[in-house]
Formats: sequence, C-alpha cells, structure tokens
Amino acid sequence: MLDPLPRGASIGILGGGQLGRMLSVAGARLGFRSHVYDPDPHAPAGHVAAFVTTAGYDDTAALEAFGRSVDVVTYEFENIPTSALDLLETLVPIRPGREPLRISQDRITEKDFLGSLDLAVAPYARVDDASSLESAIAAIGTPAILKTRRFGYDGKGQAHIAQRNDASNALHAMSGAPAILEGFVDFDLEISVIVARGLSGAISCYDPGENLHLDGILRTTTVPAAIDDGQRVAARAVATRIVDALKYVGVLGVELFVTADDLLVNEFAPRVHNSGHWTQNGCAIDQFEQHVRAISGWTLGDGTRHNNVVMDNLIGSDVDRLPDLARSAEASLHMYGKSEVSPGRKMGHVNRVTGPASPAPLAAPRFS
Amino acid sequence: MLDPLPRGASIGILGGGQLGRMLSVAGARLGFRSHVYDPDPHAPAGHVAAFVTTAGYDDTAALEAFGRSVDVVTYEFENIPTSALDLLETLVPIRPGREPLRISQDRITEKDFLGSLDLAVAPYARVDDASSLESAIAAIGTPAILKTRRFGYDGKGQAHIAQRNDASNALHAMSGAPAILEGFVDFDLEISVIVARGLSGAISCYDPGENLHLDGILRTTTVPAAIDDGQRVAARAVATRIVDALKYVGVLGVELFVTADDLLVNEFAPRVHNSGHWTQNGCAIDQFEQHVRAISGWTLGDGTRHNNVVMDNLIGSDVDRLPDLARSAEASLHMYGKSEVSPGRKMGHVNRVTGPASPAPLAAPRFS
Repeated sequence: MLDPLPRGASIGILGGGQLGRMLSVAGARLGFRSHVYDPDPHAPAGHVAAFVTTAGYDDTAALEAFGRSVDVVTYEFENIPTSALDLLETLVPIRPGREPLRISQDRITEKDFLGSLDLAVAPYARVDDASSLESAIAAIGTPAILKTRRFGYDGKGQAHIAQRNDASNALHAMSGAPAILEGFVDFDLEISVIVARGLSGAISCYDPGENLHLDGILRTTTVPAAIDDGQRVAARAVATRIVDALKYVGVLGVELFVTADDLLVNEFAPRVHNSGHWTQNGCAIDQFEQHVRAISGWTLGDGTRHNNVVMDNLIGSDVDRLPDLARSAEASLHMYGKSEVSPGRKMGHVNRVTGPASPAPLAAPRFS
Repeated sequence: MLDPLPRGASIGILGGGQLGRMLSVAGARLGFRSHVYDPDPHAPAGHVAAFVTTAGYDDTAALEAFGRSVDVVTYEFENIPTSALDLLETLVPIRPGREPLRISQDRITEKDFLGSLDLAVAPYARVDDASSLESAIAAIGTPAILKTRRFGYDGKGQAHIAQRNDASNALHAMSGAPAILEGFVDFDLEISVIVARGLSGAISCYDPGENLHLDGILRTTTVPAAIDDGQRVAARAVATRIVDALKYVGVLGVELFVTADDLLVNEFAPRVHNSGHWTQNGCAIDQFEQHVRAISGWTLGDGTRHNNVVMDNLIGSDVDRLPDLARSAEASLHMYGKSEVSPGRKMGHVNRVTGPASPAPLAAPRFS
C-alpha cells in the first residue's frame, strides 16, 4: 500500500505508555484516529486515544479485532512478543517492519548488523557462560560492561566489570540470560540522532542532541550538541545509513559515542525516542508527527531545528517539582498522566527553549 | 479554590468541537484528564479525551454526574443553556465564569459593557421592530449591519443595509429575533488579541494577529499584524482592560477594527479563539495550554511570539487539499477529525511558520 492513509483512517499503536500517548496525539492532529493496545487499563495513552483495547499480547481474539479495526499498526517498544506480530501482519501493515525489531531486540545481532554496514561499534563478544566470559575479557580487556542480549532498557540488565575478578558477580547478575561483553568506551560525550524514513524512501534527520545519563536513565538532552559540523554531518550519515539499509519506515533513534577521533554506534531503537522529545519545542514537526507521517505514507515534515532546547526528564519524585515548574513561564511541560510515582519511573519531561537556533543549524538533510 | 489543581485532576469541557479537542490535548499535556460533554456522539474532542459524556444540555442526571466527576468546568462555546450552568455551578467551579458568558451572549449588553470601560465601539442601536429599525437608521446612517443580538457566529444572523430601502429585507432576515444595528466601520484591517488572565490576576497577552474574513468566516490570521508598535500596545491594553474588569479566568479573544486613527472593539469571545490558533506554532505555550493553565490555577506560560506565522483555516472542501498539504514539508497541520464535510464547516487549519519573529515582537506583557 503506497497511497497515503486517507483522512480519518485509524492507526493502531502497540503499547500505551508515554511514547504511545504522544504518538496518539500526533495522529489526531493529522486527522487520524488512534487505537491503543495495552494490557494495562491505566495506560497513559488511553487518555488521548479514540479507541482503547485493554488485553494481553497473547489474547488472539483481541489482537485479531484490533488488527481488523486499524489501517496500519505501529509500536512504542521493542519487546512485543513475536506471536502477536505473526498474527497482526496477516491483517494489516506493521510499520516500522519486523526486521528492525528482530535486529534491535538482540544486542549481538544489532552489532553484527552495524558492522556489516561498516559502522564503528565498541568491541564486543558473546557470553553464554563463565568460560566464554573469560575468553571475552581476555579479548576485550577491562573495564567492560556485561549486558543481557535481550530485554534491557534504562540501564537494566547491565553489570560493570572493572577488573577480572568482578566477572563472576557480573555473570550472576545476568541470571543465566545470554549476554554480551562490551568494551568500555572512553567517550567525550554521548549524542543521539533521530531520523525518519518515509514510505517513498525519503529520509529526514533531526539535529543531533547531547545526552546525559544518570544511573542508566536519560536525564537531559541538549540541542545543539557540543560537536563540530563535521561530527554533525557524520552522525547524521550514520543514522541515514541504518534506515536506508533497513528500508525502514518511521522514526528511529540512534545513540552514538563521540570519542576524540571517532563516532561509535551504541545502539538504536526502532521507534520514537526519549532523546527526541526536544523536537516538540524545537521544530515545526516533532518526532511523533514525523513518525505518523512516515507510517501513513505522507510526505515527511520539516525537521529543521529553529530553537535551542534543553529537555529534562521528570523521573520518580522529580514530579514533586511540578508546582515549581508550573510557576516557571519558560518551561514547556509534557506530563504523561501516570497516577503512581515510583523510583526511576518517567513521569513527564520539560522542554526549555533557551533561544533561537544558534549557531545556525544545518538544514535537515532530505534525500528523496 | 485558589490552590492549583493537582496532578491528575479532571477538567470538564462543555462542547466537543475542535476547540474542545485542542483544549483536551493541552490538558493532557499538563497531566490532567479531560472529560468532554457533548450531545453529539461523534464530537471531535471525544477522540482525545479520557472521558466522554454524550448527552444533551438538558439532561440533568448526566450533567450532575459530569459535574461531580470533574475538578473544574470550562467551555468551548458561548451559547450554553443557562439551566445547565445553574446546575453545574452548584457542584464545581466554572471558569471563565458566568458573567463574561452573560455579557458576550448579547451584542447590546456586550457593547454597553465595553462603553462602560470607555472602549470605543462602532455606533449601535437596539432594534426590535420596523419602527426601532427606522429610528436606528436615522441615528446611525447607512451603510450599516443588522445582527441578531444572540446566537450569531461565523457571519450567521447578519444582514447588510446598504441603503434605507434594504431595511425591511434585513429585518425579515432576523426572523423576529431581537437585533442590533451597527454602523459600518471603514477599517483598514481587522486584528485580534488573545489574552489570558490567571486565577491570581496575572495577565498575559499574545501579539495581535491580523484577520481576513470571507463570507463572515475567518480564513487567515497572520502574525505580525501590519500595525505599528503604538497600535500593538493599544490593542493589548484594550484586551487587558476587558479581562481585568471581568475578573476573568482563562483565555479570551477580542476582535478589533483598526481605522486611520482609532481602535474599535468589534466583539469578544470568552474562550479560546480561532484567530489564536497560530500560537500553536508561534509560541512556547499556545492559547489552549494557556487557557488550561489559567483555569487550573497554574502560573500563566510565556506568550512571547518567537515565529512569524500564517494560519489558514481549512473550510469545507478545502479539506480536499489535504493530500497536497501533506506533501508540503512546511505546513503544520491541525485536523479536527470530523468525518462529514459540509460548506462552511471548519475541518482543520494549517500553520505556516514564515520565519523567526521579525520585526522582534514586544515581550508578552505580564501583570501580576
């Protein structure tokens, strides 16, 4: 189906968290109706969706009704059970497709894929047991990080290995799951690039943002990132390479390490990305609308950055700052409508426009 | 209740059209849940609301349940039946209040009120029958416009009187409704000011926009308006005067005629206003969020304009241009999710950012 979705078409969203919520609003703004699918009856996206299905990812009757009721399916997270996708893809296009999901779900597959594109990554080795961990440490050295191959997010499923004798504790932390050892990268800063590829193959990149993580969780993204124009162009070229190779449709977030003389890809996520939330207050078309435009077969929007922005995540008890933030006339608040506060839970974010785009950003490169 | 509404509070919205829809999204962005009340089961705001009540404004049981379920009630249109407000105000604060509704619902009351503030308006006279119309024409002259006192919008309930012998046809067009004769104003341009007053009494004004009407319906609003700094300041002073006198809480739109040597108030609407839609792509905080901030007892946001914008309404078959608009990377689309197209029906609007704010706008004046 290469025709753009018609006015009033329905977009199915697997996952009703904050990303699904902001996708739902973006879809509505373009005249679409959003149908959110989530097992949680309190899913935040349900507050702003035309239709909500509350059911598990193993509920075939619910999945089938959902699939038949929408014109395209997208998703807000990577770990959707394969069986659910097997069923849905017989009924309706899934965008982005299954291949980027398959690749990004496994850190080894992901790094092998990046390597096949001649993109630089940190040294890595597969770890299944104590013996393969020992070989991996011998090959890569310390410090290094042991990570589960699958289902990691926000720093979960990771253990640092500062020296050889941390190995057995680290392996224990994996709880027997297949793992990957990654060499420690002595990076100057971490950036991410949000890139979109449309159904026609057109590509549009946002300006790279500079990320600050604390305890494995993204705290702030700042645009512009403190990189030079050459690095800016190179970072966008990496992102473009990835979506082009995947024949990707939608928005994808790539995290990169900037070292003294290189750009290393850390990982990518086949979805809108926390480090792209600044686009809501920095660009005419934000990443959520861009994603909807892409999966709907619409022309991509203008991703040129017109403001400098600092995005702050509101995590756990940060939400207690809400009354203060409400007093600040400069803060653009984006709350997720979650009732329960818990440590590490993303409750909302704040975009601060710190001025017009300066230095002048590169135009959002477009390739059609 | 002077405390700000807490996180997760519910905002009741009377009317589920496009204004209610955009208010609902703005409320969600601040972490509130929106409850839309509308007799139409297809009301556009229902697609983006946490709760929807589909019931008539005379359904006391539904109104009572609605009033008890929300923390504040606001409205997207002026002509809410008095009986519904009588019931709701016993249960929950209504913001803006009933007084601005009462005044703006009747063109004579409105002009009397504006006169009491020493604000200039076009000459006007009350018309109840042929004889009072004759006296009115004698006093005001021609050309003039006969309008129903109540329930007029988008040019409905209006008849032009170019010369005396148009009088009986014009009176006939009023269908016996009480009317007002307004002198024709030879204006250079029409502008409007969107102003917000918070619960604390703080006031924030947006930069005036220049309006172009066709067949009584707003077609475009352009910022900046082609007026000088003195006129800009004067226009904002008018808007500020009105909300201050009304002890208003929320966003209000004022339409003004700019003549060679004066500013005349045409009318005001005690709600977010079509001519303020440009704020979505011109300011950090748009008129919808500003309204929610005001009625929630939050601090008002920053209304400083950072872009030049042209807002185009998509009316009736304009919506056929959607595929073309979708192809334009510069157009920020805001569709209303209406299924049925009919002549004169507002289907959506497009904001085109035409550049950074130039000439530099005045800072949004704030009075606290």
